[in-house]
Amino acid sequence: MRYTSAAIETLIEEFSRLPGVGRKTAQRLAMHVLQQPSADIERLSQALLNVKKNVIRCSVCQNVTDRGSDPCPVCSGRGRDRSVICVVESPADVLAFEKTGQYRGLYHVLHGVISPLDGVGPDDIRIRELLARLQPEDGQDVREVIMALNPTVEGETTVLYISKLLAPLGIRVTKIARGIPVGAELEYIDEATLSRALEGRSGL
Amino acid sequence: MRYTSAAIETLIEEFSRLPGVGRKTAQRLAMHVLQQPSADIERLSQALLNVKKNVIRCSVCQNVTDRGSDPCPVCSGRGRDRSVICVVESPADVLAFEKTGQYRGLYHVLHGVISPLDGVGPDDIRIRELLARLQPEDGQDVREVIMALNPTVEGETTVLYISKLLAPLGIRVTKIARGIPVGAELEYIDEATLSRALEGRSGL
Repeated sequence: MRYTSAAIETLIEEFSRLPGVGRKTAQRLAMHVLQQPSADIERLSQALLNVKKNVIRCSVCQNVTDRGSDPCPVCSGRGRDRSVICVVESPADVLAFEKTGQYRGLYHVLHGVISPLDGVGPDDIRIRELLARLQPEDGQDVREVIMALNPTVEGETTVLYISKLLAPLGIRVTKIARGIPVGAELEYIDEATLSRALEGRSGL
Repeated sequence: MRYTSAAIETLIEEFSRLPGVGRKTAQRLAMHVLQQPSADIERLSQALLNVKKNVIRCSVCQNVTDRGSDPCPVCSGRGRDRSVICVVESPADVLAFEKTGQYRGLYHVLHGVISPLDGVGPDDIRIRELLARLQPEDGQDVREVIMALNPTVEGETTVLYISKLLAPLGIRVTKIARGIPVGAELEYIDEATLSRALEGRSGL
C-alpha cells in the first residue's frame, strides 16, 4: 500500500523519471506541489508544455530558440563577429561562453559528440549542418572554427573527426586550451591536466 | 544574456522554485525535458494539474486522498482496528507506518507541528479534527491514541499539548519509543538518543 491518493502516486512516478530524482526526492517534490498554490503549479505545468511546443533549433547554429525567432538571437544579433564559429556540445555550453562576456563570435551546437559505444555516429550529431555553414558558396566568410568540446575521449575523437573534415576548406581550426583552472592548486590537479598544461605552455 | 529561448528560461525559473533544486539542477532538468518525447512531458504536466485538482484531505483522518474516495482507503478499509489512532505529522509518515505492515489501526495526519517560531499555532494544524474524532458521542470507541511525531523540539511540544487536551477524555495516550535504531552501532549514537534508550529500557 502506498499513498492513499492515485493522483499523488502518478505524480511521484512522473517525477521519478527526471534525471537525478529518486523515489524519495519525487515524494518530497510531490508533497511540495500539494502545498503550493494552484496558480504556481499551473505555471510549472504550462512551462513544461510550452518548452515542448515552442522550442525549436536555430536553423543556422542549431542552438535552442523559440518558434518565431529563427535564426536565434545570437545568429541574428548585430555586433557579432561572423568570421568565427565556436563549436560546442550543448546549449548549456553556449550559455557558459556567453557568461564570460569575452566571446563575440557565432556558435554551432552539435547536440552531442561521436560516441560509438553509445551508438552515436557522426550523422547523429549536427556535423553536416556545420559543414554547410562553411561552404564558400554560402557567401559567409568564416576564418576560424574554435572547437570547444568537453575534454573527454569522445570529445577529443569528435574534434579530430571534424578537423579532418574541415582541412580541405582551408579554414583555421583551433581548440580551446586545456590547463590549470583559475583558482586551482597545482598540488591537487590530476596528472593528465598537468601534462596538458605543460604541453600548452606559452612564452611570457 | 541567458538561453536563447524564453520558453526554456521560464521553465528553468519554475523548476528552480522546487525545493532542493538550484539553478544548475533546473537547467539540467530543462535540458532533459527538451530531449524527452512530448507525450512524456505532457504526462508530467497533466500529473501536476491532477494533483492540484483531485487531491483532497480525508474528512476523517486528514490524510491525502483523491476526490471521490473520501473517507480515504485506510479510514474506510475493512479489517482496520478502529480503536487505535496513530497521530502523525505528514502523509509521508502514514506511508512509512503502512510499509511496516505491522500497524492495523487508523491514522490522524496533523499536517505540521506546533512551532511558534515559524508562526504555527495549535489552530494551524489539524488538532481540532482529532478532538472531534475522539468525542464519546461520536459513537466511535477509540481506546488508544499513539503519538508518532518526529523527535524534534516542536514534535515533543505538540505531543505534550495534545496529550493535555486528551487527558479529560480518559483515552490512553502513548508515544512511540525513542531508542537505538535497528542496525546502528552504539559507538556512533548521539548522547540524547542513548539517554532515551536507557530511560526506555524494558525487562527481558
